[in-house]
Amino acid sequence: MGKSIMLILVCFFALQALETQTLEKDEVDMVKLNALFETNYQGQLYSGYLSAKDDGSVEFHYLFYPAIDSSSEKPLILWLLGGPGCSSMIAAFTESGPYTFIPESIQFEENPHTWTSFANMLYIESPISVGYSYGPAGAQSDESTAQYNMHALIEFFVRFPNFKNQKFYIGGESYAGIYVPTLTQEIIKYNKQPVNPEVLKINIQGIIIGNGCTDPSECTLQGYLFPIHRLNFFGRHGFISEETYQKIINHSEECYGSATPQCQALAYEALAQISGPQYSYQVNQYNVYSKCIIQTPEGSSRMKSPLRVSNEEKDDSDVPPCVDVKGLYHWFQMDEVRTLLNIDQKSPKWVACSINFDDYQINPNGSLDIYPTIIKNNIRVLILSGDVDGVVPIVGTLYWIDKLQQQLQLNTIKPWRPWYIPALRECDKDQNAGNVFDIEGLTFVSFRNAGHEVPADQRIQSKIVLEKFLRQEYL
Amino acid sequence: MGKSIMLILVCFFALQALETQTLEKDEVDMVKLNALFETNYQGQLYSGYLSAKDDGSVEFHYLFYPAIDSSSEKPLILWLLGGPGCSSMIAAFTESGPYTFIPESIQFEENPHTWTSFANMLYIESPISVGYSYGPAGAQSDESTAQYNMHALIEFFVRFPNFKNQKFYIGGESYAGIYVPTLTQEIIKYNKQPVNPEVLKINIQGIIIGNGCTDPSECTLQGYLFPIHRLNFFGRHGFISEETYQKIINHSEECYGSATPQCQALAYEALAQISGPQYSYQVNQYNVYSKCIIQTPEGSSRMKSPLRVSNEEKDDSDVPPCVDVKGLYHWFQMDEVRTLLNIDQKSPKWVACSINFDDYQINPNGSLDIYPTIIKNNIRVLILSGDVDGVVPIVGTLYWIDKLQQQLQLNTIKPWRPWYIPALRECDKDQNAGNVFDIEGLTFVSFRNAGHEVPADQRIQSKIVLEKFLRQEYL
Repeated sequence: MGKSIMLILVCFFALQALETQTLEKDEVDMVKLNALFETNYQGQLYSGYLSAKDDGSVEFHYLFYPAIDSSSEKPLILWLLGGPGCSSMIAAFTESGPYTFIPESIQFEENPHTWTSFANMLYIESPISVGYSYGPAGAQSDESTAQYNMHALIEFFVRFPNFKNQKFYIGGESYAGIYVPTLTQEIIKYNKQPVNPEVLKINIQGIIIGNGCTDPSECTLQGYLFPIHRLNFFGRHGFISEETYQKIINHSEECYGSATPQCQALAYEALAQISGPQYSYQVNQYNVYSKCIIQTPEGSSRMKSPLRVSNEEKDDSDVPPCVDVKGLYHWFQMDEVRTLLNIDQKSPKWVACSINFDDYQINPNGSLDIYPTIIKNNIRVLILSGDVDGVVPIVGTLYWIDKLQQQLQLNTIKPWRPWYIPALRECDKDQNAGNVFDIEGLTFVSFRNAGHEVPADQRIQSKIVLEKFLRQEYL
Repeated sequence: MGKSIMLILVCFFALQALETQTLEKDEVDMVKLNALFETNYQGQLYSGYLSAKDDGSVEFHYLFYPAIDSSSEKPLILWLLGGPGCSSMIAAFTESGPYTFIPESIQFEENPHTWTSFANMLYIESPISVGYSYGPAGAQSDESTAQYNMHALIEFFVRFPNFKNQKFYIGGESYAGIYVPTLTQEIIKYNKQPVNPEVLKINIQGIIIGNGCTDPSECTLQGYLFPIHRLNFFGRHGFISEETYQKIINHSEECYGSATPQCQALAYEALAQISGPQYSYQVNQYNVYSKCIIQTPEGSSRMKSPLRVSNEEKDDSDVPPCVDVKGLYHWFQMDEVRTLLNIDQKSPKWVACSINFDDYQINPNGSLDIYPTIIKNNIRVLILSGDVDGVVPIVGTLYWIDKLQQQLQLNTIKPWRPWYIPALRECDKDQNAGNVFDIEGLTFVSFRNAGHEVPADQRIQSKIVLEKFLRQEYL
C-alpha cells in the first residue's frame, strides 16, 4: 500500500470520525424534546450552528429534519424567513415542520402535512442577530447576507456530506424573496469556481418563493413611499373607497417612489380608511380576513405597520404586527429548550423578529434583476402567492412576473387556470384551491384564502403544490 | 249604557276572543320544539299562515318571534329571503333567529347574538310555492309578490294588533333587494289611502338590505348576459388573470346586456379561469373564501351557477349551489316539525329554494328607481354588504349607490371610514370589521370576511350594526 493511499485512508477515517462527532454534537434528544413538547415525532432532528464567515466570528443557528423515510432518496430544501430580521423558526414551527403550534396557543401538535414526508428540511436563522444566530454587531446588507448564507450552506454540506449530491432547493417567504435569489446567485458563481474540496458543486434544482419581495416597487424605500401594490390590493378588496382607489390608480405613476406632500397625503388618506385616523383599528395585513392577534407573554406588538408610508416610525417590539407567535415566544426563550437545541450561551435571547435592523442596507434594485440569470441556468422557479396577503400581495407578484416575461420574451407554456384540492368527502366535488400558470422556467401558483405564510394557512394545498413541483409535474 | 257603546263592547270582546283564538291556533309549543331541537329557547314562537290575497286562495307561511323581553317597546323587523324562490326560514335558522344550525350539521344551537334580544322578528315565506307557502300555480312577478307581501303584512297587523304601532322595519337579502323596496313602495301607497279600518297606517321607519339585487346590471337578464360586477369582483380578487380582467374592464360598456358571441366568449373565458373548463372545480360564490358544501339528505345541488352567462342551463335541484342547508333539509321536511309549526296539508314539501320559478317575471328595471321615493318619504335605508360575496358583490353595490347619490344629489354626511368590533380580549385592540359611509337617507356598511348572508357569517358584527341603526346612531 503506497503512502498516498495510506494518507487518503487515514484522512477518510479521520474525517468520518470528525463528521460523526459533529453530528452527534448537534443531534437533538427526541425523547426529551417529545416529552417537553408533548408530541411524538419519530424522525430525527439536528440543531446547532453553521459557520457563516471564514474567520469563525459569525455562527448561524440551523435546524435540520432529515426526511422521515428514505432520506437519501429525497431532495433537500433549505427554507429561509424574511423581515429582514425574522427567524426561520417561524417557518419550522408554524408552517412546514413535523410539529407545529396550534394557532393562538402554546401547545404543539403533529402536522399531518409535514414536508419531511417528501423532503429533507433545513431551516437556517439568518443573518446576524436573527433568532439564535450571532456575530459581531454592525451594518449588514443583502450582499453580506447572501455571502453568510453561502458560507453556512457549504458548511452544512461538509458536515452532512450524505446530502450534498441530492437534489437541492431553496425556498422562503416575504423578504426571503431577496435572500433566496441572492443566495442562488452565489451558488451559480460558486459552482463555476468551487473553493471547498469537499463540496465541488451544489446540486441546485430550483427555488420556491412565497409572497416574496422581488421588485423594487415592493421591498425598497421606493415601495414604502407610495406602496402601490398594497394600496391596489386594499382598493380591490373593498377596504378603500372607490373614489380614493381611483385616485391611487390615477396617481400611481406620478407617486411611485415620490415623497411629495400630495402623494404622502393620498397614501395616508387610504391608510386612514383601512385602520382609522389614529390606526385605532387593527387589521391583520398578513391575512386581511383573519384576526389581528396581539398577545405574547411579553406584551403587545408595536412594530412598524407594513403599510407605513414614511420611515419615521420606530420599531419598539420584536413581534410582527398581528402575527400569532405566542407559542414561539413561550418556548424558544426557555432554558430547557435552549439546552435541548444545543444553543450556545453566546446566542441572544430568542425573538421572532430582531429589531436591530435599522442599519440593514436594502439593495434598491430588489431581486428581480437576478431572475434572468437563474432562469438561464435552468434553475426552476416556483412562485407561491397567498391571495389574501396585504403585505406582499398577489397583484404585485403578477406585476413583476409580467415584466420579467416581457423582458425575457418567455413563452407561456400553460396559461392561467384554476387548480384544485380533492374533495374531502365523497359527496363533494374537487374544490378550487387557487390559480396557476406556467411560463418558460417559472410556475406561478396562487393559494385561495392563504395569507403571507402560505404553508401555515393552507397546509394540504402547500403539500400538493410542493410535491408536484419537485416531481416536475404540472398542477 | 247606550246601544252603541254596548255594540262596541261586544265587538271589542268578540274581536279579542277572535284574536286570542287566532294567536292560540298559531302558537308553537316551545316545550315540544325545544325537546325536538334539543335546545332551550325561553321566548315565544308563532307559526302559521297569513292570507296573501283577498279571495283567500294564497297563504303565506310565517314565523314570528316576539322579542324575548319587553316586546312592546321594541321594533318589529320583517325579514324576507331572495331567490326568487328561496325560503326565509334560511334567515330564521342560519342567521338572525334565536336558535340556528351549527354549520355543516343537522344540530341546533342557541344563537347568543339573536336579534330577538332587541327586536320582534317576523319571517315570511314568499311568494307562492316558496317553503310552506301555497296558492294557485301560475306566473308570478315582482309586482304580484309586492302585492301578496302587502296583503300578508296587513293580515299580520290585524292578527297581532299590539305590534301595529311599533316602529317597523323591513329587511332582506339577495333578491329581497327587489322584494323589500317594492313592498315599501306598496306601504307608502297604502299609508296614503289605507283600506283596512284596523290598520290605518304602517309605521315604517326603515329598510335593511344585505347584498341585495338592486340595479338592472345585477339582477336582470341584462346582468346575466355579461355579469360585469361579478366578473369585476372575481378579477379584483385574483380568480381571473390580469390579462382577461383587463379585457373585461375594457369591454364592459360594449358587452353589458349584450349577447354577442365575442362578449359571451369573454365571459366564458373568465368563468373557465374560475371553475375550470367543465366547471369541474367548485367555488362557493356566496363566500369565495369558504368551502363549497354539497350535501343534503337528498343529494347534490345542480342548480344553475349564479355566474351563468346564458339562460339555457336548467335548474334541476332545490339547493342553491355550495350552500350549507343539510340541517334545514333534515328538519323542515319532517312530519313532527310540520305538526309543531302548524303546517297545513296543503303546504308543499319544504325545500330551501323552489325550482318552480322559470316563469317568474323579473322587472327589467330592478329596484333602483324606487329609492328616490323611499328616501323622499324619510324611510331610512341601511345597505349591508358582505365583502367576500361573489354573487351580489360589494363592487356592484357601490356602483349603484354612487349612481343614486349623483342622481339625487345626496350630500355625504360622513364619508368612507372603517368601523370596528371591540377587542374580545384585553390585550387586543379593536379590530377592523369593515367600512361604512353615510349619505343623506342612506348608510352603507361593508362586513369584512362576510359572504352573501352577512348575519350568518358575522353574527356579532351584524348585531352591532343593526342595533346602532335602530337607535339612529352612527357606526
